[in-house]
Amino acid sequence: MPDWIEEPPIPGSYRSIFKWGAPDAFKHPNKRLYKLMKETFNLTENDFLKRHNEGNEPVRCGHKIGLSKSHISALTRIVGPDNVSTDDYSRVKYASGKTAEEAIKLRNGIVDRAADVVVHPRGKDDVQKIVAYCNRNRIPIYVYGGGSSVNFGLRPSKRGVTLVMSKYMNAIIELNEANQTVRVQPGMLGPAYEEMLNSAPENLGAKRRYTGGHFPQSFEYSSVGGWVATLGSGQSSSYYGDAYTLVISQEYVTPAGAIATLGYPATATGPKINDIMKGNEGSYGILVELTMKIYRYMPENRKRFAYMFPTWDAAVEASREITQGEFGMPAVFRISDQEETDVALKLYGIEGTIIDAFMRIRGFKPLQRCLFLGTAEGEKNFARNVKRQVKKICKKFGALYITGYPVTQWEHGRYTDPYLREDLQDYGIMIDTLETGVTWDNIHHLHKGVREFIKKRPRTICMTHASHFYPQGTNLYFIFIAKMKHIREYIAFQDGIIDRINRYGGSLSHHHGVGKMLGPWMEKHLGRNQMEVLRALKRHFDPNNIMNPGGQLGLDVRGKDWRKIK
Amino acid sequence: MPDWIEEPPIPGSYRSIFKWGAPDAFKHPNKRLYKLMKETFNLTENDFLKRHNEGNEPVRCGHKIGLSKSHISALTRIVGPDNVSTDDYSRVKYASGKTAEEAIKLRNGIVDRAADVVVHPRGKDDVQKIVAYCNRNRIPIYVYGGGSSVNFGLRPSKRGVTLVMSKYMNAIIELNEANQTVRVQPGMLGPAYEEMLNSAPENLGAKRRYTGGHFPQSFEYSSVGGWVATLGSGQSSSYYGDAYTLVISQEYVTPAGAIATLGYPATATGPKINDIMKGNEGSYGILVELTMKIYRYMPENRKRFAYMFPTWDAAVEASREITQGEFGMPAVFRISDQEETDVALKLYGIEGTIIDAFMRIRGFKPLQRCLFLGTAEGEKNFARNVKRQVKKICKKFGALYITGYPVTQWEHGRYTDPYLREDLQDYGIMIDTLETGVTWDNIHHLHKGVREFIKKRPRTICMTHASHFYPQGTNLYFIFIAKMKHIREYIAFQDGIIDRINRYGGSLSHHHGVGKMLGPWMEKHLGRNQMEVLRALKRHFDPNNIMNPGGQLGLDVRGKDWRKIK
Repeated sequence: MPDWIEEPPIPGSYRSIFKWGAPDAFKHPNKRLYKLMKETFNLTENDFLKRHNEGNEPVRCGHKIGLSKSHISALTRIVGPDNVSTDDYSRVKYASGKTAEEAIKLRNGIVDRAADVVVHPRGKDDVQKIVAYCNRNRIPIYVYGGGSSVNFGLRPSKRGVTLVMSKYMNAIIELNEANQTVRVQPGMLGPAYEEMLNSAPENLGAKRRYTGGHFPQSFEYSSVGGWVATLGSGQSSSYYGDAYTLVISQEYVTPAGAIATLGYPATATGPKINDIMKGNEGSYGILVELTMKIYRYMPENRKRFAYMFPTWDAAVEASREITQGEFGMPAVFRISDQEETDVALKLYGIEGTIIDAFMRIRGFKPLQRCLFLGTAEGEKNFARNVKRQVKKICKKFGALYITGYPVTQWEHGRYTDPYLREDLQDYGIMIDTLETGVTWDNIHHLHKGVREFIKKRPRTICMTHASHFYPQGTNLYFIFIAKMKHIREYIAFQDGIIDRINRYGGSLSHHHGVGKMLGPWMEKHLGRNQMEVLRALKRHFDPNNIMNPGGQLGLDVRGKDWRKIK
Repeated sequence: MPDWIEEPPIPGSYRSIFKWGAPDAFKHPNKRLYKLMKETFNLTENDFLKRHNEGNEPVRCGHKIGLSKSHISALTRIVGPDNVSTDDYSRVKYASGKTAEEAIKLRNGIVDRAADVVVHPRGKDDVQKIVAYCNRNRIPIYVYGGGSSVNFGLRPSKRGVTLVMSKYMNAIIELNEANQTVRVQPGMLGPAYEEMLNSAPENLGAKRRYTGGHFPQSFEYSSVGGWVATLGSGQSSSYYGDAYTLVISQEYVTPAGAIATLGYPATATGPKINDIMKGNEGSYGILVELTMKIYRYMPENRKRFAYMFPTWDAAVEASREITQGEFGMPAVFRISDQEETDVALKLYGIEGTIIDAFMRIRGFKPLQRCLFLGTAEGEKNFARNVKRQVKKICKKFGALYITGYPVTQWEHGRYTDPYLREDLQDYGIMIDTLETGVTWDNIHHLHKGVREFIKKRPRTICMTHASHFYPQGTNLYFIFIAKMKHIREYIAFQDGIIDRINRYGGSLSHHHGVGKMLGPWMEKHLGRNQMEVLRALKRHFDPNNIMNPGGQLGLDVRGKDWRKIK
């Protein structure tokens, strides 16, 4: 096995910024994945002897601070000197998301863009004052939540100020057990949020335990505010809902004034401001408080089940039948296509086990067979019935029950797969993902179309799964792994995939959001008249274009010019 | 018993316009309700000898046609001469909704407002041409769907044109069984829509039978487009969802251009235009096509159950527990407060039966006990489990199972209660409703506050139920019956109730919409900054204010001035 890095990055280094997750946490490719990569990319052990561009150098920003001293002083007067940073490291750290492109550039010491100053607001009042000041003085404002953006959503295209929400605005304000809602600040990260809810009796004096029901792969390094601002989905969204449906009300500070939407479970009082604000990705205003739905926490009722389908078509048909069967939905609900199934069986350590042997005997052939993973949650009998109905449908479509073991294995790695990236990049191998929403009647066309494009490139792994289900459709999540020499090649390849998704009728994003990266496709995707609705709202909330300007949602920049803004 | 009218209204009469429902359909108060009214209002049989203001006179509009002949010719060139009406009857009919106020005025031959011309568009193209023409010439446009508005939503405050959507644009365009969606034109009325879906194999060559899942009390005289434009809820909304969640995509014609929102079950591509358009009540544009979710039609799985609770508090607590129990939701789900329970037992013929005797023996006292009605739908075991869990919770809160019989009785009358109004008004008795959305933690405060106001008026019946449930709260639906002499008294009383609802923390409307009637409360309810968001969208879509102008949603008129527009 290669000498995978096992040391936390050097503090202050580029690597300490682009590395995913906890500094001292790692997930290395296992033997089977390593073997697959060598075979696929035509590599030998020699290719894994030397790591490239580890990014161990100390961070240098390289961009002059454009903001005047008097502006910085004014901001300092608002939040206090401890909460303003202009050092290189802070400026680069809070300008960086988690795109593969940013990682590669940081490995090469390239800092594309940095805000002039990083500010940690202590609460709503600070945000209000900062927005008022910046609006008067036309200073751009960017927001950093958990930092897990994969589309340059937090890139400070036009410099100015980056607000970091997680230093102070990171707590539950009030648990309302009657309404089963929680008021929470936007900078609270996933694990703290879920832990407070799970231990509500101990932490909050509650009668019951609760769950937020939102578990994106980025759970550990994403914030509650970010979930809503970018329209995330968790791995149990088929049961608990997407961030869009989890948020009952929101409070915003915008250049046009503050807004606190009403917290009714339903109203018929015109277009819903609460929904209009969702997904604005910091371009209309800054989310300063949320009221979220919560659910009773009943892990004791959870059922796990996995099936192997003979083909992708059968897995898709069964999934559709499950979503439309009106017995409730599984929580975790994933189907992997042929190629992902093959890799998954390696990753989860199932290849070569007795389960694998059993599958082969029963005629489930590698690179045809497709894996289905699921859990059922909720009330005990409800969960039991979901499991029973799923079984009935899976059998009908020729699937083999392969126990709950693969689900347990998947659960162990559910948040850790992103850690693989650093090991791969150390040896010049790129791994990245793009994802899309799709209706049932278009899933095969879209899947084939995108795979065709990706696989046209020689020696490229393309794994696809669907993991968020609705009676009307699902999402497709494409993961590609390829050995690439130049960042330019990577960007062109990625653009090609996005073009394909758009041309083959997928939505531009199912749950990663738009950011600046997908901005150039927005008008084509939505149509000009709908794009103009988003722009009309932008002009209303932010007439001076200070909120996340420079390409976000494709609002204020034509085509791919967002990369060129100086 | 009084001599209730059993004859269809005279064609061309005022009564033929304000009478609810089918001309030859009636629902008279039964003996028990008649007795209750006499007692409550201190009336004798003599008061029911003579009917007042039956509205049998032929309709006279009384408003000159303000639109020039050349404009009317231009509209006629677009839709053809058969589809343009300027006769008095058409102008009054399509200017009238179903508020009690309109009924009383029409009984007195008062026509507050009428459009200049009534137009029946034959399709999207006609609508597009009409909107373009009217926008160029600053001619107001109003839309008439099923005509069941109870808030002056279709009142042509500023005259101009009323478009009637139901003559032509009333069909299902395409059933998509893979996605379980249906493309439908906005003017299709409830029964035709549901019948097409129920009989999809016969009507549409489908593999399965479907249901739309949307059954408002106005079902028979409301349109699919109206459901979405005004944010309606059906009587099974707790399971199937409100109109807001039932609509997947929409096509609009607006003065700023056409919009067809994307039909993905979920996306993360910025604020959702599909949601921004919902509930605009004709003030942003005209809905010309919808894609709606549909469900498998499985009436054979339906379970019915009714319980009697010792108190309103217990009924509320049990309901909350049901919504938060995570076993799925009942479809029909209603709890009636003490006073409504008393009337309901009379109306459903349960008072004086063996069930009533049994309840009394068991200590469930009149004017304390509260009725719960429910059904469970969906997959068989799912429905069975919902019924079982509901039972468990109801028992826990001291309720008595009183069989499914009251539900069957309620089902018989589910669409016919509005027919009672004409009989009551014939003898000077007003019946009307107001409704509101509420969170669980505020339900008792709001219920008491509004009841207190209504009951302060001597000799006034006030019935309340909750019938649309969510884990975060429900709605409260207030019905008052009172003998009133003057329409002014009625309007002042109604305004007082709305004030109370607003002051006690209810939403301005849960599912009746805003119209012009509730417009004056909108800014207070949402706050100025949120109202300005709705106005910014209004300016974008309709810069010349031709779409439903004159008070709709409170967008363009201050306070209660909408009544005064000439």
